Amino acid sequence: MLGIKDMNSNFLKVLNQQSAEHTPIWLMRQAGRYLPEYRKTREQAGSFLNLCKNPDLATEVTLQPLRRFALDASIMFSDILVVPEAMGMHLYFSDGEGPKFTNPLQSSLDVDALKVIEPDFDLAYVMQLIRNLKQELPRNTPLIGFSGSPWTLACYMIEGGSSKNYEKIKTWVYSHPQQLHNLLDKVSIAVADYLVAQIKAGVDTVMLFDSWGGVLSEAKFIEFSHAYLAKVLQRIQLSLPANKTPSIVFTKGGGVWLEQLDQLKCNALGVDWTIDIGKARSQTTKVIQGNLDPVMLSVANPSIIKTEVSRIIQAYREANAGDLTGHIFNLGHGILPSAKLDNVSALIDAVHELSQR
Amino acid sequence: MLGIKDMNSNFLKVLNQQSAEHTPIWLMRQAGRYLPEYRKTREQAGSFLNLCKNPDLATEVTLQPLRRFALDASIMFSDILVVPEAMGMHLYFSDGEGPKFTNPLQSSLDVDALKVIEPDFDLAYVMQLIRNLKQELPRNTPLIGFSGSPWTLACYMIEGGSSKNYEKIKTWVYSHPQQLHNLLDKVSIAVADYLVAQIKAGVDTVMLFDSWGGVLSEAKFIEFSHAYLAKVLQRIQLSLPANKTPSIVFTKGGGVWLEQLDQLKCNALGVDWTIDIGKARSQTTKVIQGNLDPVMLSVANPSIIKTEVSRIIQAYREANAGDLTGHIFNLGHGILPSAKLDNVSALIDAVHELSQR
Repeated sequence: MLGIKDMNSNFLKVLNQQSAEHTPIWLMRQAGRYLPEYRKTREQAGSFLNLCKNPDLATEVTLQPLRRFALDASIMFSDILVVPEAMGMHLYFSDGEGPKFTNPLQSSLDVDALKVIEPDFDLAYVMQLIRNLKQELPRNTPLIGFSGSPWTLACYMIEGGSSKNYEKIKTWVYSHPQQLHNLLDKVSIAVADYLVAQIKAGVDTVMLFDSWGGVLSEAKFIEFSHAYLAKVLQRIQLSLPANKTPSIVFTKGGGVWLEQLDQLKCNALGVDWTIDIGKARSQTTKVIQGNLDPVMLSVANPSIIKTEVSRIIQAYREANAGDLTGHIFNLGHGILPSAKLDNVSALIDAVHELSQR
Repeated sequence: MLGIKDMNSNFLKVLNQQSAEHTPIWLMRQAGRYLPEYRKTREQAGSFLNLCKNPDLATEVTLQPLRRFALDASIMFSDILVVPEAMGMHLYFSDGEGPKFTNPLQSSLDVDALKVIEPDFDLAYVMQLIRNLKQELPRNTPLIGFSGSPWTLACYMIEGGSSKNYEKIKTWVYSHPQQLHNLLDKVSIAVADYLVAQIKAGVDTVMLFDSWGGVLSEAKFIEFSHAYLAKVLQRIQLSLPANKTPSIVFTKGGGVWLEQLDQLKCNALGVDWTIDIGKARSQTTKVIQGNLDPVMLSVANPSIIKTEVSRIIQAYREANAGDLTGHIFNLGHGILPSAKLDNVSALIDAVHELSQR
C-alpha cells in the first residue's frame, strides 16, 4: 500500500521528522561521471539519452555508487529533461555542452502543441527502472524519484539549453507572462502526473529540482516558480489522497527565500552551500537537506572534508537546540565529474561517525 | 580638501543618509556596449585595454551615458583587472570570452613575484582620467571610483579568467589557505592604495565590486572575502584619517549575508535582484543600492519597467516606515549589451518620477 515504507531507513526516518541512528547522507548526481564504472556503462550505452532510456543500464548505474559507498539512499538514474521530451520536444546531448532542444519554444502555438503525457506509457522506461530498482536495491535503501520543477523545465524548453542570462525566458516573464503561465500550467500537470506514476511504481520519496529558480527576483520567483511547485505538490495530493510519500524541494540559490519555501506542502527543503545551515535551520520548520560545497570533493582532501563536515553538523546542532534531528546531509549541488573517490568515502564516513546519536 | 563634496548631489545626500529630492539612480556598467557611441569609441581605441589606458577616450566613454540620460552619478570607465595587471600579470581581452590572464597564479612563488604597486605611477592613466573627469563633469554629477574586491581579483588571478566552478581558487581555499591569505593580503594593500589614490585624485565615492564573493559558503566568505573587504576599508581610513569619502560594497549573491555585510565600515551595500529590497532593508542599517533585474532592460518595455520600478520603490518605502531615504536605485548587476536605450530612459524617468519627495 502507498505510504507504508520500510522505516528501518535512517533517511526515511529523518524525512518523517523521527529520530535516527545517525544523520543520513546521499549525494545529488551520485550516479555520475566521477565514477569510472559509470563512464564505462555510459560508453556502452552509446549516448547519455540511450542510458536514460535503457532500464537495465539505468538500473546498473543507479546501483554503482551504492556498491562503493555507504550511502543512505539511492536516486533513480535519469535526467530532468525526459519530461519535455515526452511532451514532444526533441532532446539531444552534445558532449561538453550539456542538453539541448532542437526547437526551443517560441510562441503560444508551440505551447499548445505540447502533448499531455501519460507517464506509464510515455515514460514507461522510467517506470520499468523503478520496478527494477525495487527488486535490486538492498531492503533498507530507499529510492528517490524526481522531476525538474516546472520553472526549471520551462527554462530549458524556452532557452533551448543552459543559459547565461536567461534572456529568452525572461522575455516571457516580463513581456508575455500569460503565455508563460499557460506553459507552466501544462508542465505542472505533466510533472505531477509523472511523480504520481513514480510513487505508484514504488519510489519512497520524490524530489523537485528547481535548479534555476534562483535566477529570478523574489516577486517573480513567487509568481513563476514557487506557485508551480505548490501546484505540483497539490496535484499529487489530489491524485493520491492517502499518499504519505514524503517530498523534497530544492531551489538552488533559494537561501534568501526560505520563509516562502517553508510554506510549501513538502517535507524537506534542499539548501545550497552559500547559506549557513544554522541560519537555514532558524528560518524553516522543515527537514533540511544539504549543504557541503560540491567543489570540495574535487579540490580538498579527506582530512579537510572531515573538518568541514564537523563544522556543518555542529552549526546544525547549535541552531537546533543540541539535536541533530531533521537534517539530511548532502552536497549543495550535484557532484562534479572531477570529484575524487577517496573524498567521497571520507565524506560519508565523517557524516556517519560525527553524527552518531 | 578631502571629504568636502558638493552636497547638491542627490546621490551624495543619500549616501550620507540625508534627505534628497528624489531617489538617485545610476547603473552599473553604464558606460558600455549597449551604447552605439561607446561601441564606436571602443573601435577607435582598437582594444578594450587600450580604451582603459587612454584617459581621453576613457573620459569620453564615461561622459557618454550622461549626455543621453539624467543619471545621478558617473562612474569612471575602467576595468577591475587593471590592478592585477599593474601588479605584473599579463592581461588580454578576447572578444566574446571576457578578460584572461596569460599566466594565472599557480604557487606561492607566483604570489611573491607580484609587484607592490604605486598607483600614481603604475595606474597613472586612471588618475589622469579622474582629473579629466573632475574638469569635464557637470558640477552636480558626482564621480564614483572603484576597485574589484580582493577575493574577486584573486579569483581572476588564479582561475585566469571567468570560471564555472572555481575549482582552481577553491583548491587554494580548501588545501592552501595560507597561500591564499598571503595573496589576499597583498591584493588588499594594492586595492586600498589604489582607492586612496583615486580619492586623492578627486573621486566622490569609492565602490568595491565583490562580484564573485557569492560562490563561497558563508564560513569561507567571511574568511576569504569579508575579512579583506574590511581590511581594505580599514587601510583607506588609516591612510586618510580625515577622509569622509563614502564607500559602497557590493557582493553579488550576498543577500544571505547582509547581517555580516552590515558590520563592514562602509556607507552602502549593493544588493542583486534576487533579494526583495524590503527584506534587505530590514537586515541592514546601511544605505542600500539596487536592485532591478538587469535583464529587464533587454527584454521588457517602458511600461513594464515603470511597474517594476514602482514595486521596488513601494517595497522599500513599506520596509522603511514610509520613507524613501537610504535608497540608491541601480540594477542588481551590470547592464547587458542587449539593453534597449528607450528602456534605460524609461527606468531613469520612472525612478525620478515615482520617488519625488
